This record gives sequence, structure tokens and C-alpha cells, in this order.
Amino acid sequence: MAKELTTREDNYSQWYNDLVTKADLAENSAVRGCMVIKPYGYGIWERMQQALDKMFKDTGHENAYFPLFIPKSFFSKEASHVEGFAKECAVVTHYRLKNDPNGKGIIVDEDAKLEEELIIRPTSETIIWDTYRGWIQSYRDLPLLINQWANVVRWEMRTRLFLRTAEFLWQEGHTAHETRDEALAEAEQMLHVYATFAEEWMALPVLRGVKSANERFAGAVETYCIEALMQDGKALQAGTSHFLGQNFAKAFDVKFLSKENKQEYVWATSWGVSTRLMGALVMSHSDDHGLVLPPKLAPIQVVIVPIYRNDEQFDQVAAKATEIKEKLEKHGVRVKFDARKTHKPGFKFAEWELKGVPLRLAMGPRDLESNTVEIARRDTLEKETLQLQDIEQKVVNLLDRIQKNLYQKALDFRNENTFKVDNWEAFTDRIEKGGFVMAHWDGTPETEQKIKEETKATIRLIPMEGKKETGKCIYSGEPSEQRVYFAKAY
Amino acid sequence: MAKELTTREDNYSQWYNDLVTKADLAENSAVRGCMVIKPYGYGIWERMQQALDKMFKDTGHENAYFPLFIPKSFFSKEASHVEGFAKECAVVTHYRLKNDPNGKGIIVDEDAKLEEELIIRPTSETIIWDTYRGWIQSYRDLPLLINQWANVVRWEMRTRLFLRTAEFLWQEGHTAHETRDEALAEAEQMLHVYATFAEEWMALPVLRGVKSANERFAGAVETYCIEALMQDGKALQAGTSHFLGQNFAKAFDVKFLSKENKQEYVWATSWGVSTRLMGALVMSHSDDHGLVLPPKLAPIQVVIVPIYRNDEQFDQVAAKATEIKEKLEKHGVRVKFDARKTHKPGFKFAEWELKGVPLRLAMGPRDLESNTVEIARRDTLEKETLQLQDIEQKVVNLLDRIQKNLYQKALDFRNENTFKVDNWEAFTDRIEKGGFVMAHWDGTPETEQKIKEETKATIRLIPMEGKKETGKCIYSGEPSEQRVYFAKAY
Repeated sequence: MAKELTTREDNYSQWYNDLVTKADLAENSAVRGCMVIKPYGYGIWERMQQALDKMFKDTGHENAYFPLFIPKSFFSKEASHVEGFAKECAVVTHYRLKNDPNGKGIIVDEDAKLEEELIIRPTSETIIWDTYRGWIQSYRDLPLLINQWANVVRWEMRTRLFLRTAEFLWQEGHTAHETRDEALAEAEQMLHVYATFAEEWMALPVLRGVKSANERFAGAVETYCIEALMQDGKALQAGTSHFLGQNFAKAFDVKFLSKENKQEYVWATSWGVSTRLMGALVMSHSDDHGLVLPPKLAPIQVVIVPIYRNDEQFDQVAAKATEIKEKLEKHGVRVKFDARKTHKPGFKFAEWELKGVPLRLAMGPRDLESNTVEIARRDTLEKETLQLQDIEQKVVNLLDRIQKNLYQKALDFRNENTFKVDNWEAFTDRIEKGGFVMAHWDGTPETEQKIKEETKATIRLIPMEGKKETGKCIYSGEPSEQRVYFAKAY
Repeated sequence: MAKELTTREDNYSQWYNDLVTKADLAENSAVRGCMVIKPYGYGIWERMQQALDKMFKDTGHENAYFPLFIPKSFFSKEASHVEGFAKECAVVTHYRLKNDPNGKGIIVDEDAKLEEELIIRPTSETIIWDTYRGWIQSYRDLPLLINQWANVVRWEMRTRLFLRTAEFLWQEGHTAHETRDEALAEAEQMLHVYATFAEEWMALPVLRGVKSANERFAGAVETYCIEALMQDGKALQAGTSHFLGQNFAKAFDVKFLSKENKQEYVWATSWGVSTRLMGALVMSHSDDHGLVLPPKLAPIQVVIVPIYRNDEQFDQVAAKATEIKEKLEKHGVRVKFDARKTHKPGFKFAEWELKGVPLRLAMGPRDLESNTVEIARRDTLEKETLQLQDIEQKVVNLLDRIQKNLYQKALDFRNENTFKVDNWEAFTDRIEKGGFVMAHWDGTPETEQKIKEETKATIRLIPMEGKKETGKCIYSGEPSEQRVYFAKAY
């Protein structure tokens, strides 16, 4: 199985597609640009959801659900939002089909035309702030800390599984606050929640920062983001958190009576991560043998493959394997015993390697005699034979080590592929080869735009961390207050 | 607060709407027929989801995700399915908006018309079976046991919060099997999963049975259902499980190589429950004071309301309340301490009564002295003063008793409102007054249709349980093999 994979060096993009489809994460559907998330892929997404949902609730948020449809006119209410979102989208114009009078299947019933077209939500600020108007009267109703798990649609022309699809799954938080400071603190808090999730669960090191004006969310005053580096040297935006100021409150007339007894506009944030994270997960850890999954998100953490020559041996090994499985499960480890008699061990090894299961235990009659098991790590591909005594503790420790190792490996990679450059020639040269490039920029949208046109690189973020250092813009030579991160990006 | 509720006797339908909106479960949105599920309502739905999801996984199912959009032509492939589902639905015809050249906001871009219209899924059999064709080659790929949590859209003309909305949330299971018997067993198994969930979690007694041909799911060979009786004497279908035969396999050409090395069509089931269950939950237990929630699904199981005259008293009571809260939480109880100083105890009592919190603990300075607490049950409205010693165990026991009591009350109500009748006059008289009416029917769709036209009653189900008894049809006088359940229904 694994043999059929394209290698990263050969064709990185094809390697990615091979992995996603052959490891049963997702596939293209019959509907242009829409994917089917297969059970194995969905199992990873469910674990992401659970971890994030807990983090949201631990920070005081509740879930709710708002309509899939947004009246067209809502988009026109926030000036910059309409430019960003009301263009490439799915438009519902009719609400009925009828039998074709010519007997050719079914056709749209022209009598059932909507008075106002409905847009499938590309993001829900407009419908949610229209609703919040009814929920917020006084400072006592604030803060409102709400999240929604939902599907959204953006009619992308060029799609790639998980990374860019017409329909995708995500969560979108939408909060309302009394003050500017409180909303800013919320937007930053959620960015740190995302960063913590990426690093601790996905083993994905991320940079934290703010977007330049050009890259800001349509309707936001400030967009915070986390950015990660993929193995091909391209950056991927892994999550954003927006400080929306009073833009949506003004557009939808959401005011509250303040403690000082004044009518004021409400302050807002929104923040989201999507199934795009699945793409980031695949691209940051996997290798030419297949997926490599961090143990915390792996649907199966340990697979046990029996080695046997006849039914009697199978039964003996199976008995021991089941015993080990139960022991491990008592320690919260997710274990699969691959009892299929229709497939050879070699086939199974390749399959579970392709699917990125962190630990593989192989066990045969000789292991039973010596009370041992052969254990193989997916991340390093190392094998060793272990005594079965205290196997639960050994496995738990190994899983923990793999999780940490994946993070460290990705961090080392990012560090090795982050460069400081100080002039245009070095910049264009370096950007071409990939990686994060830290360079000075004069702070103008015009310069940013020109750099993008000439190199295809964008400013991924203006860092929030680390010390600032002044310098001269690599493009215009004008003064700069700090280095920013450039990269070509997904 | 509760005073403003319409009573059930006054206007049952208005009472229901009052409850749903005033208890913060849901509200109508700006989009016709679509609802907003508010955090408190969504909290209940989340608990339903968790319980059901675990039951699905315990019976071997996995989750996946299929596209929101279905190409129009897919509906025409299964003859009866198209009649049932491809009529009142949301139709996407365009994929772009543009600025109005006359400067009046945004308009549909006629250049961006889809070649084939896309339907927002009203149910996903078609897109899923189109996908399964690629997943199933041999008996080794079977059974395929998949569930999806999703939103669906059916363009209903008359909508009611939770009971009938244009968009609703649900789960839909879609399984594929080698044999007819296996698929039948799956459809029955899932019906029993639903019945167990309704009875054990929702405290909702349900009848199990099969639908008559008229009431069958469009495309099914057999539809199993659970039916519950609401307080107004109307029945509500709470879940369905369909044996689809080989209908969808034939429509989408899904064959497998059998163990006997023959190409055969795959056997199918599908099954679903939706946010409609929220409506059933509200209508079966609540009273004129507001919601009554079964403890297992209540987002807040216990609320503690402090009684105090000054800050010092508040602080003393708060300290004790917090101690109790922590003790209860260690036993897995969901507790809220209502520390708002902006509201009086009487207001809080009414609010939590309206919201259906199963147990209310009230505590003041005198309770501190005597080491007691006043505890009020939402289901019976009984109050008693309890010693604080072992309060955790007392609360856990009470919650358990409330759960059982709600079930028993609903079961008693159903038994008192289930009638056997043996002639047409008694039937029409009884049907008018409400309740389940067990009567003989000749088994023909024509008779069923006439009874429906004359009385608005439908056959809710043909029972699977209990002993059969022959007789004569109340309408036609023709022989009947068993009584069936008639009722007017939601």
C-alpha cells in the first residue's frame, strides 16, 4: 500500500493528496469542491472538536446554533464585510422543484422564487449580530460568550481536500462586550487558546501575531492569527481571532444601556478554526510512508498485529493480545487488535503505517514464550522488543514521548527554516526557497502589495512576541519598527 | 416571569411557544422558518447528542460527513424518493453575487449560474449511496455502519419551533449490509436504541412499531418508528428507522462480490432523530409554571439560591453554598450557584422554575445555624427542609427519583389516554377528544386515506409488541389481523 505513495520530494502536492485519500481521511465528492470526510478522518476531527470545545467551555463560552441561511441584504450592512464575503457564495433563489412537464425528471418551479435571495453562510457575523440586537439591552446582558459548530460555504474556484473546499466544517465564536479593552482581551485570549491547542494537541508549533491591514478579516479592526510552517516551506494560517470593534454593532444597531446609564454600541470579537487544521496536521508530521499522527488526536493509538502460522497459534496470540488490549484500555489508551485473517502481517504493517497509528505491537508464538512484544514507533520507525511486564506504563510513556518528539521535530524544522534577511536580493532569493523570512517592512499596504506581486509572498504576521528591532524596509528602504514574517502560504 | 405564561388549558399551542421562547430554548430567526437555538436549549441538545452518539458507537457505528449539497439529478434516481423529498426544498442556482451597477447593494450575478442546480439536503440517502458505490466492492467491505450529525432543510410552509422548521439539526445513520436479514436486524436494533434513549434519558415512554405503507419513508421498504403521546392528546413521531431493501443500491448501482463470488446489490438502512425531540421533551413533562426537565438532560440539575439581608449574610451563605456546590460536583452533579445581587430570591425562584431546573436549594442565615437547606422539586413542586449531612447522596437520590417519576407520570398519562374502540361512531368520538385509539383496520391504504380525510387521524403505528387479536375494520367492516394505533399527530 504505502509503496504507491508519491514521495514528498517527487511531488509534495501529490504526496499530500495521496495521503489524504489513501489513509481514508477524505475524498472529493460528486459535488464540485465539496469533500466527504471519511470515518477515519472524522475520528481525528471529532477529537479536535472535543479538545477545543472543552477549552472554550473552560473559558466561559456556551454553544448555540444560528441559521444556515443569511438574507442577501444583511451582507450589505457592513461595508468591508460585503466586499470580503458576499461574492463567491452559494445563492438560494427558489424553494420548490416540480416534475418536468416534458417528463424529463424534475425542474425548478419558477413560481417558487424567493423574494429575497438567501446566501449559505460563509461566516455568521451578520445573522448573529442581527440576533444579538434582541438579546442585549443592558450591561447586565454582557458579556455574551457564544460559539457555534457549523458548516459554511465559500465558493472557491480551486479546491484542495481540507485546505480549501467549498463547504467546510468549523467553529465560530461570536462574543459581545461592554468595553473595547474587554473585547481586545477576549480576542487575544482566544488566540492563545488556539495556539495552546495547536501546540499541545496537534504537536504543531505556531507563531502568534497580528495581520497587516491587507490580510485582515473583512470587517475586523484587528485580526490575530497563528501561523505554522509546513514541510514544503509554505506557511499555513491555522486559526484567526478578530477584534471587530463596534463595526457590527453599528451595522446592526446593537446598543446597550451602560452602567453609567448611557446607550452605547457593543464591542465584538469573532474567532474560528476549521477542518483546514486537518490539512495542517497531515502536512506537518507525515512522511513518505504515510500519515504520522500525534497520539493525543489519533483515533487508534496502538495497533496489535498477531503473527501466527495456524489457528492454534492465532488463538494463543489473540488471547494474550486481548489481555494487553484490556490493560491498555484501562489506562485510557485507544487500542485496536487487528484480528483479520484475510490479510498478512506485512500488509497490516504497511496499512497502519500509512494510517499513522503511533505505536504498533507485533506478537507471535516466540513472544509468548519469552513474555515479550515487538514495539514499533511510527514517528522514528524504530523497533524494539520489550518485556510485557508493566507494558501499560511503557506504552503510556512512549505515547507521551512521541507526542513531544513530533512537536520538537516540527519546531526544529521551523527554526531551521526561519531566516533573517536585510536586502531585496536576499529576500527574493530566500522566499523562492521557502520558509519564514523575517524582514523589515515600511508598514504600508502599497509596499506589501508590491512585494506580493513580485514574489507571491505575503506578510503572515506581525509578531506579538519577542523583542522589537528597528531597521529599513527591504523594498522601499523606508524606516521600519520591527521585523515581520513573510512567506508563501496555503 | 412564570406568571406571563399562557396555561395549557387556555391555549396549548401558545403555552408551548411561550415555554420555548421564555425559557430561552429557541426563537424564530430573521430567516423565514429557521430558528436560532439559544445556549440553554443547545445545552439540552448537546446532552442528547452525547448520549445518542455513545449508543451509536457502542453498537459499532462511526461518524462521517457528507456534502450539504445534492445535485438535482440524484433525486430522480429513486422513484418514490423523488416524490417525497425533491419538492419543497432550498435550491441553489448561482454561485456569485456582484455589486448592483445601479448602486443598490448586491445582486445575483447571472453569469454565475450553475449548470445543474444543487439542492440543500433534505436527507442524504442519495449523496451517500452515490459515495458508497466507491467504497463497497466485496463482502469484506461490509457492513458499513456510518452516522452523520448534520443540518438539513425542508421548505415547510407552516413552521413551529423545534417541531417543524425549515432547517433543523439531526443525525442520520446510513448502513450497508450483505443480506436482507442483517439489514432488517440493524433497522430494528436502531429503533430499540431510539426507544431506550427516549425512555431512559428523556423519560419519555414510547410505542414501537412499523408504519403503514401510506406513512412510510419515501424510498423505504419498511419504516419502524417510535411514537409518544403529548399532554394535549396528540401523538408525536420521535424517531424512525428504515429498512431500505436494495432500492438505493439499485438506484446508485452499488454492488458487491459476495462470499459465493456473485455480484449482488447491497442492502440498506437509514435512521434518524432530530431537534424535534426537543419539542417532545418540552411537551411531555412541562407544566403551567414552565419547563420540567429530566435530570439526565438538564444543563443545570441543581440551582442554589442564597437568602440574605446584607453583604455579611451573603458572604456567609455564599461560602456554604460554594462548599455544597463543590461536593455535589464531585458526584457529577451539574450545579449553579445563583450569586446575582441584582435579583431577589422570588425572581430567581420563578426564573429557575420556568427553566425547569430539577432541584432548587434555598439557603439563608437560619439554615446556616441549623445546618439545613430547603430543597424544592421541580416535578412535584414539593418543598422540604433537609439536614446538610450527606447532602450529596440525598441530592443524587432525589435526581434519580425525579427522573423515574417523570417517566412514570408520562406513562400513566399515556395509559389513561389509550383507548380500544370497536366501531366507527366510538372511533370518531374518541379521536376528537385525543389520545391513542387502538382499533381494527382492514390493512388497505384506501381505508386509511378515508379515515384520515374524515377525522384527520392517521395510523401512528402497527405495534411490534403485545399479542395480536383479530377483529373487524371500524371503517369497512372487513377482517383485520390486529389492532393498530390511531391518533391525530404533530
